[in-house]
Formats: sequence, structure tokens, C-alpha cells
Amino acid sequence: MKKESFDRTKPRFPDRQPEALAEGMIEGRNALTEALKSGRTIDKVYIAEGSTDRSLVRLAAQAKEAGAVIVPTDRRKLDQMSPTGAHQGVIAAVAAHEYASVDDILALAAERGEAPMIVICDELSDPHNLGAILRTAECAGAHGVIIPKRRSVGLTAVVAKTSAGAVEYLPVARVSNIANTIRDLKERGVWVYGTAADAESSLYRTDLTGAAAIVIGNEGEGMSRLVRESCDVLVSIPMKGRISSLNASAAAAVLLYEAMRQRMQ
Amino acid sequence: MKKESFDRTKPRFPDRQPEALAEGMIEGRNALTEALKSGRTIDKVYIAEGSTDRSLVRLAAQAKEAGAVIVPTDRRKLDQMSPTGAHQGVIAAVAAHEYASVDDILALAAERGEAPMIVICDELSDPHNLGAILRTAECAGAHGVIIPKRRSVGLTAVVAKTSAGAVEYLPVARVSNIANTIRDLKERGVWVYGTAADAESSLYRTDLTGAAAIVIGNEGEGMSRLVRESCDVLVSIPMKGRISSLNASAAAAVLLYEAMRQRMQ
Repeated sequence: MKKESFDRTKPRFPDRQPEALAEGMIEGRNALTEALKSGRTIDKVYIAEGSTDRSLVRLAAQAKEAGAVIVPTDRRKLDQMSPTGAHQGVIAAVAAHEYASVDDILALAAERGEAPMIVICDELSDPHNLGAILRTAECAGAHGVIIPKRRSVGLTAVVAKTSAGAVEYLPVARVSNIANTIRDLKERGVWVYGTAADAESSLYRTDLTGAAAIVIGNEGEGMSRLVRESCDVLVSIPMKGRISSLNASAAAAVLLYEAMRQRMQ
Repeated sequence: MKKESFDRTKPRFPDRQPEALAEGMIEGRNALTEALKSGRTIDKVYIAEGSTDRSLVRLAAQAKEAGAVIVPTDRRKLDQMSPTGAHQGVIAAVAAHEYASVDDILALAAERGEAPMIVICDELSDPHNLGAILRTAECAGAHGVIIPKRRSVGLTAVVAKTSAGAVEYLPVARVSNIANTIRDLKERGVWVYGTAADAESSLYRTDLTGAAAIVIGNEGEGMSRLVRESCDVLVSIPMKGRISSLNASAAAAVLLYEAMRQRMQ
């Protein structure tokens, strides 16, 4: 009976510590100051909207300098994130792993003597999807994953756990603007493939053996228009059923393993 | 800012109704009696362990007769599932959709004039994995999915939601014993493929164009020994990274789409 399971979306055992912040989150000015001093990578800083408090403004500037994204946030939302209210106007998300750069990813491919295989995640919001994609990318021998700084989940504790250790091996780069990064990659000889249901060419008629970056769109709306227009080629994953799309991590698995299959020939 | 997201494993907004049962669960004798009368499919009945109460014993017998799995459960666990304690010794999980039979699945393949493509999920415990596999199976044109009655998540509300509607189209059969079902399928001309890291043949050197069933193992331990030994062929999915396996739903996506690719040739 040990494997009987219930609906996991509702906590079966009410949380004994409703005061606790989510894993990987820190709150309060001292905690953030110490985290910055110790050189930990800060993903995002949620800071009280409209605050003119000098020490808070200075702290935000320091965090931004260190690479964090600053998110002005309503005080009530901060209170909800921290039920004790001990946030002093600031809550920060600490990254579960260091970020790499796009250059690191291309260097890894060169080091292995392989044509680059890169995954670009365009605004994924579900940490389980990003974690699953990191795991699959590592298994398929990809050289790295690129995510945007804003409107995307970062390398949170849940992403790290869902990745089954892939965050330890696979470089993940965080960029300010995906469309600009795509332009740079194209200039450096990488072909960028997007997926679209109405694309003219089927995945299975597309050559993925050269230097390639594959774009995975957001769970709800797919790729943004700008990103879609930046791609070299749009490919469609064949759909034989009555629903119109795979989820983001299944699409990534199909694309990455088709690339691997072609490269094994 | 609307897409900023936090760690979803911790509820950011404390549940306002801690009294509520999880979605798709009903409690109490009258509720179960009415659900059975109305012909709703009951997945599982969690019943107070060791109870000799006649009406409870009779209710369990009725539910079993209607196809439900009876799970004797510690009273404290029932209390945790229902914080109000209004369960009267019985809590039941209602299926989000009717189950089909293995014959229904084979009939669907025959109707379409296609070689059967079946997915067998061996004791999956995560509803998100089962839901994602149903979605991918429907997209890849599979004819049905087989799950075991025990030690497996059923067609819960979360599975239905994660499947993105696939439960409405794809037959899902629930069987008492996966190994017996595999034996039956083999007698009916279906080849059964399991996956194993140490398998002799690579997926990409395996012909999946005939009548085929693909076994997806449990998230933690993979296929059980008995199921593994029942397979006709064990195949390995190539792994190029430093972690040793894909998650269950990514493995299903890779296998099902490779079968689709081969069948498109």
C-alpha cells in the first residue's frame, strides 16, 4: 500500500509551519545584504513598490549590479509571500545554481568538437517544465539552455530538483532579450528553429545536424511574435490526435531526441 | 509583470478552506451510495481499516462490484484526508472519466486500419506524469493507455487537467495485473517493448512499425522485475549526458514520436 497516492495539488498534510518562506527565498534587508556579500547568485528581488527608503533603494541597486532582476511589488503581495510580515520591504529569490553565459555554451560545444545544440526557453513560467527540459537537454547531449531574465522562472530550488541534477552539469544562460540573443547566435552561424503548428516543414523533414538552437515557447501562448519572426526556420511536430499541441517539456524531448537521432547517423 | 511566478510547490495564498476535500474526492456513506447509484466511476474507496460495521462492509462490497479498488486505510489517515472528520469511515476517489477495456483499444486500432500502438504505464504515482503521457499519446496517434488498478494513480481530476483534454478522446484501460495483460497482448500478436538503460538494442535500431505496446516504468524504480521479464524486447534510449535517465513523460514522448516517425516513412 505504500505507493497509494492522492491528488498532489492539494497538501494532504496541512503545513505545520505556515510562517516559512518558500524554499530558496530570503527576506529582509540583512539577509539580502549578507547573501550579496557572500557572492550568492540572486535571481530576483521583489521590492516594495514606490518605496523611497534610501537603504532599500541602495540595496536594490547593489542587487541589480550583481545581476538580479528587480521586481517592484505591491506590499500586500510581499505580505502574502511572507506571512510573518518580516520582509522589511524586500524578498529575494536565490538561484539554486550559478548562471553561465552564451559564450560558455558555445565553448562547451567547441570543446567537445560538436555542432552546438542549444535550447532557448521563451518565457516558461512553470518550474517543473523548465526542470524537465534541463534534464532532457542534458540526457540528449545539448550544450546549454538559454532563458530570459524577465517573465521566466529562474533556476529555483524546484527547477533544480526537477532537473534531477542536470543544473550541476548543463550551462544555463540568462539573457536580457531573447530576440537579440537569437540575432547574435545567427551571426555566429547557429540556425534557430522555432516550432509552430502551422509551420511549412515537418520536424522529420528538417536537418538538425548543423549548429542549432531550438526555441521552446511559453506554456500558454507559445513563442512571442518577435521571437517567432527571429527564427530561421519554423518546424511543426506532427499531430495525429484531436488535441493540438504537446506540452513544453514533451515538445522539447521530441525535438532534442530527433536532433540526437540525426546526429547519430 | 503578470507572468512573474514564484515557487509553485508552496501555496502562496494560504488555502481559505482547509475543510475542503481534494477535487474529485467524496466522503461519507451517503455521498458514496449516491455516486454508485448514479453510475459514476469510482476509482478507489479508502475505508476504515478493520471496521466490522455492517453498512460500511456492504458499501465496500457494492463499490468493489462496480469496479472500485478498496483500500483499507488507517482512521488517522482518513482524518488527515478530511480535516472536518465527516468521513464516517469512508472516502472515495471519483474518476474524472470512464475507463475503457483493452479490447476497446485494439478495436480502435482496427477501426482506423492501423497497427496498434499502446502505452502501458507500470505503477506511475505522479498524476502530472500520467496526464502528460495521455496528452502525448493522443498527439502521437496512440490507440490507448493501460494502467494497473493498484499502486497507480487513476484518472483523477489532476490527470484529466494535465492531459489537456486527452482523457476525452483516448481510451484508458485499468487492469488487475499488468504482467497478465502483457501475456494476453503477446498472444494477440502485439510486440511489447520495455525500456532499460542496460538493454542490448538502441531505440533507433528497433522497428516499431508493427503492432506494439510500449511500457513506461515507475518514476522511481522503473519497471518491476516481473513486467520487465514479460517484455518481448528491451530497448535503451541513448543517453549522452551525465545523468542516467529521462523522466517518465519525456521517455514516453521520445518513444511514441520515434514510433510515429517510423510509421510515417
